Amino acid sequence: MPKSPINFQVNAGDGQARAGVLRTRRGELETPVFMPVGTVGSVKATRFEQLEANDLDARIILGNTYHLWLRPGIETIRACGGLHKFIGWDRALLTDSGGFQVWSLGDLRKISEEGTEFRSHVDGSRQFLSPEVSMDIQAALGSDIVMVFDECAPGQAPSNEARQSMELTARWASRSRQRFDVLQSEGLDTGRVEGTTLTGAQALFGIVQGASHMDLRRESLNRTVDIGFDGYAIGGLSVGEEKSVMWEVVGEIGPLMPVDRPRYLMGVGTPEDLLAGVALGVDMFDCVLPTRNGRTGQAFTSRGKVNIKNSQWTTDTRPLDEACHCSVCQRHSRAYLRHLYMSGEMLAGILLTHHNLAFFLDTMRRVRQSIRSGKFTQFRQEFTDMVNSGAD
Amino acid sequence: MPKSPINFQVNAGDGQARAGVLRTRRGELETPVFMPVGTVGSVKATRFEQLEANDLDARIILGNTYHLWLRPGIETIRACGGLHKFIGWDRALLTDSGGFQVWSLGDLRKISEEGTEFRSHVDGSRQFLSPEVSMDIQAALGSDIVMVFDECAPGQAPSNEARQSMELTARWASRSRQRFDVLQSEGLDTGRVEGTTLTGAQALFGIVQGASHMDLRRESLNRTVDIGFDGYAIGGLSVGEEKSVMWEVVGEIGPLMPVDRPRYLMGVGTPEDLLAGVALGVDMFDCVLPTRNGRTGQAFTSRGKVNIKNSQWTTDTRPLDEACHCSVCQRHSRAYLRHLYMSGEMLAGILLTHHNLAFFLDTMRRVRQSIRSGKFTQFRQEFTDMVNSGAD
Repeated sequence: MPKSPINFQVNAGDGQARAGVLRTRRGELETPVFMPVGTVGSVKATRFEQLEANDLDARIILGNTYHLWLRPGIETIRACGGLHKFIGWDRALLTDSGGFQVWSLGDLRKISEEGTEFRSHVDGSRQFLSPEVSMDIQAALGSDIVMVFDECAPGQAPSNEARQSMELTARWASRSRQRFDVLQSEGLDTGRVEGTTLTGAQALFGIVQGASHMDLRRESLNRTVDIGFDGYAIGGLSVGEEKSVMWEVVGEIGPLMPVDRPRYLMGVGTPEDLLAGVALGVDMFDCVLPTRNGRTGQAFTSRGKVNIKNSQWTTDTRPLDEACHCSVCQRHSRAYLRHLYMSGEMLAGILLTHHNLAFFLDTMRRVRQSIRSGKFTQFRQEFTDMVNSGAD
Repeated sequence: MPKSPINFQVNAGDGQARAGVLRTRRGELETPVFMPVGTVGSVKATRFEQLEANDLDARIILGNTYHLWLRPGIETIRACGGLHKFIGWDRALLTDSGGFQVWSLGDLRKISEEGTEFRSHVDGSRQFLSPEVSMDIQAALGSDIVMVFDECAPGQAPSNEARQSMELTARWASRSRQRFDVLQSEGLDTGRVEGTTLTGAQALFGIVQGASHMDLRRESLNRTVDIGFDGYAIGGLSVGEEKSVMWEVVGEIGPLMPVDRPRYLMGVGTPEDLLAGVALGVDMFDCVLPTRNGRTGQAFTSRGKVNIKNSQWTTDTRPLDEACHCSVCQRHSRAYLRHLYMSGEMLAGILLTHHNLAFFLDTMRRVRQSIRSGKFTQFRQEFTDMVNSGAD
């Protein structure tokens, strides 16, 4: 078998749900996997030691091309030896391409065939991002999995507009692939790893677009697979459309994606969403929910969401989640966490974020076990019933 | 030997500097000791696991009567089993009495013989704090070392004003002692520990006041010692007076304090201040500097202060302090810390606070070693020379 940048083996299935192992040049991870988001090179409010600790044990985190390019800048990160060395993390890193972030700037950006012109949110300077620039940046960052530069159509875009966007994404995917291959052959990947059974190079994932139009989604998938990537993502979802639309798209496209490559549903979602995605054959997820909601006082638990601001927790000495084994639930009460939050203490966000990440990551561990033992459907039902029973 | 709430043994000396062991009902700590400040029940931006980790190994932290009384309130903390259980910390806790915090409210408070009336900074409600109320609160908190309720004279107070304040402090010390003893005999200490070789009760420290007037300071010391406490503190310093005045007072009063009791210099100070205090026979210190400055981007290092905002660190891959063994310096570069700070990431404050606490606590470890080996003066000189050499 020829060496590749990653190796993916599905070793169990239950319905369309599948469990496997993704080997990257920086270690193995079991799928389905949830990837904590570290936009600017920091999973917010979380030390890397905690990400590595047993109760989280995150094997892969995300970084963001757009944010890191604007600040601290690629020259800085290259001078510091690439993103892994810069942030002090030697497990796997996936970087988003910047396409979604530029798209979310709305009227501040102008799209052409060549790429996207926009104004920096940091200093207002005029910037230009294209497939080639995004690949250059991600090579300098040295992430282990690189995403193509895509154009995200608005969730409710009419068919002709969504078609133009999808076709542009397809042309950009092709340009991304070409530039990426040149960069790899020229050794411009800052994160290159020698002496592994893999190639040691970066992996490149394609992204399927097409808004809510099934014909466009199928065409996008075909055109992306024709180019050929190490993995395939579904993009342009969880951007304001109805949830039913999202699941319709994933239900249609998921089973059509190559079975021998990881399938990544970008930007999704709640714990229930993760399970719904797994049920449709998705292997990888990322979302800011556990970190963002942690900072705003919301905990995810096996009995549903806990709003720590609620006065009912004032003297409640129970942990956030009595079924949780994380270091926060082993030590701290709802009463204390509420006090920290009401007092504006940073420790509130630190601890709630940690618990939320632990809950997401542990849920995925349990998902994998249930798939391996052929009990995923049962697990999902019990999980959902428990979440809906409500925290007391 | 009759049981007492604490046991203090001086086991080495070098000039006036002394090293010893303070045994509390919640574990031993070596002196001279620096106590991290956890005003509202949280050492800011710091998880308790980090305080316990080897690179910090804080054996005692501070809580604050005033802040905890106003929020979450004593009934809440009592319902949660006392401050230790409420916050999840089973090492020693010292609580300040609230006297200093009420004093720092300035015009918002009104002092009478009975106590101090003031408006809460949390909700503007009218509150009243007195020696009796402060002792009641600290018994409910169940801290291991309780401070008397004192009245802090302004640093530059004229003699007659400072005398009135000092005499009021003496009367309040007596009332604090009486109320404290009643509370202990009635078993109203929430933090009581059974089965130790100590009494398991709280310890009570007196506070010497008198502004910058040596006669008042000496009289305050005598009156405080006459009442009799488990330890003695110097209060009313580091509140805006010239540093020379502070050291004049400590130099005068320190050597006159009972040799067999811990001596505590409240609210002090920089690393150099800690060494100056040790040289004058002080055993205990607390200060917000390592935590507060950590959140504002300033690191204390063996080569002096590092302002992490400075652009000279943009691509500097060295740790904050090449001589430091803390977990932050083992993992992260100045370049990364600067990036986190400039990006407004919480992790900047978390990591800088950790390093600063490690630096303060490690400095005190080295101070103790130097006293035990009779080389404190040499250590202090070398430390000061190094700090003044400047970070490069």
